[in-house]
Amino acid sequence: MKLSFSPASPFARKVRIAAIELGLIDQIEFVPATVLPGQPNEEYSRITPLKKLPVLLLDDGNVILDSYVIVEYLDELAGGGKLIPQSGSARWTVKSDHSMLQGMLDSMLLCRYENAVRPEPQRWQGWADDHWNRAWSGMARFEQQADMLARPLDISQIALTCVLGYADFRFADCGWRKAYPKLDAFHETMLSRPSVKVSLPPPA
Amino acid sequence: MKLSFSPASPFARKVRIAAIELGLIDQIEFVPATVLPGQPNEEYSRITPLKKLPVLLLDDGNVILDSYVIVEYLDELAGGGKLIPQSGSARWTVKSDHSMLQGMLDSMLLCRYENAVRPEPQRWQGWADDHWNRAWSGMARFEQQADMLARPLDISQIALTCVLGYADFRFADCGWRKAYPKLDAFHETMLSRPSVKVSLPPPA
Repeated sequence: MKLSFSPASPFARKVRIAAIELGLIDQIEFVPATVLPGQPNEEYSRITPLKKLPVLLLDDGNVILDSYVIVEYLDELAGGGKLIPQSGSARWTVKSDHSMLQGMLDSMLLCRYENAVRPEPQRWQGWADDHWNRAWSGMARFEQQADMLARPLDISQIALTCVLGYADFRFADCGWRKAYPKLDAFHETMLSRPSVKVSLPPPA
Repeated sequence: MKLSFSPASPFARKVRIAAIELGLIDQIEFVPATVLPGQPNEEYSRITPLKKLPVLLLDDGNVILDSYVIVEYLDELAGGGKLIPQSGSARWTVKSDHSMLQGMLDSMLLCRYENAVRPEPQRWQGWADDHWNRAWSGMARFEQQADMLARPLDISQIALTCVLGYADFRFADCGWRKAYPKLDAFHETMLSRPSVKVSLPPPA
């Protein structure tokens, strides 16, 4: 299997952490790819018209996307029910938590594109503020969820780790550690995992 | 159960069609909500900091998001394996197709926000073009997938129907029917379903 990858992508990081935790990392070849809004990448667009990272290219030529479905696929390959509960209310809690975190990451990337990629005269502060606020309010939501922060490792905890790592990477002055001490403690605990440590984003 | 809803949201439409096809529509109360980037909606943000439609509010107070997970939930409630295959390679094909279509819808909404919601001096044509191109190239991809267009009803076919309906609604002059005749025939077939017809977006 091949995974399109950039060390700066929090979505690719999520899959990388999951693959390590599931014991599948040695079966995956990482293929570097760079995508930016407003810049064509014809080679990569032939793989996925969405021009988003990551996708998983199977040996039979099939392509699996997006990052969540890739983790579901890897989870099943590892026996099932490892990072996503297979039944019961826990299943829907973990999935909904993950959807929230995925949306927070989407908003953080939109915010980053607004502040750093879009030509300066075309930046709209209201858009950046709105999307940052979604991510920030989402963090506040998880700060209050002691159960979520303490349960056994799952895909939503990995996604939360990627949210916080991306905040450090692209919004270093946002002050999430001071505002959300329980998330800080959670993040420190997660950092004791080699999968989390090895996949930290590069220096900004 | 309650579903936050707007007749203009293609994501809410997807859930509505699925709920009708699964025979669950009478169990769902639709709660109107309006969300726009750059405009606060404090009441709705208390339900979901992402400020996105739709979410499903369960009678026990739990909230399920996003639209895909809601359909998964409803599918399980209806017995399972109705709109999403439960195993085998068909499962990953349908899921990956759906992820692609979800990303196409995301890009179409970003394009719409760029062209119609963002203050005019702050619009960046390169951004709108890039995102439109992702949706348009995605349509080209599905135009070539005769298998996908002909298989029994599933969540990715519903999502494709919502993509095409949203193209009619917000990009009426884009000419998708002429460019993609097989998608046109697929859409006509889908329109014979009451679920698809009753949920058509309002006049733009």
